[in-house]
Amino acid sequence: MARMSGFRHVVMFGWVDGTTTQQQQEVADRLLELPGIIPEIQAYSVGADAGVNPGNHDFVVVADFADRDGYVAYRDHPAHRAVVDQYIKPLVARRAAVQYELR
Amino acid sequence: MARMSGFRHVVMFGWVDGTTTQQQQEVADRLLELPGIIPEIQAYSVGADAGVNPGNHDFVVVADFADRDGYVAYRDHPAHRAVVDQYIKPLVARRAAVQYELR
Repeated sequence: MARMSGFRHVVMFGWVDGTTTQQQQEVADRLLELPGIIPEIQAYSVGADAGVNPGNHDFVVVADFADRDGYVAYRDHPAHRAVVDQYIKPLVARRAAVQYELR
Repeated sequence: MARMSGFRHVVMFGWVDGTTTQQQQEVADRLLELPGIIPEIQAYSVGADAGVNPGNHDFVVVADFADRDGYVAYRDHPAHRAVVDQYIKPLVARRAAVQYELR
């Protein structure tokens, strides 16, 4: 089992009723552009819930950075803010997040 | 950016008021024994929220498997069930989870 170091951001969303798969795919597509824009991103994974368990949230982002400052640069980066404000916020009914030190 | 494949389980917990750091560490310690017990686990990371943003959940688990069946084997494994029932359930006030295909 590879040992990881760095700082990880994990956020989950539950979408408002009526959110379409297309809208969700648009969120994924816009987010997946960010690694090409924000150099602090070291690993970036997004995905829609696979429907294995009931009651889950709908979508998750897992993003790795060298350290806390790298995450904060991502969090406050204009390109990230734009995706959040334009594509994510209008669709969010539930949100859960944790950021933690990778050991 | 390395391309990932497989199946990822992400779960976050918000603890009940009064949960101690020691109780949280016990959860982490018990969970971190599971990779040595459940062979389907390919990567396993747990962590307490670093306090960077207000309103976050308290704790997260990110676990990777070869595929959906590998995750289900973990989910239903007696050793995992025991940690959930004995150490996690008594402390949980909030829970959010997503499982998704890694691409």
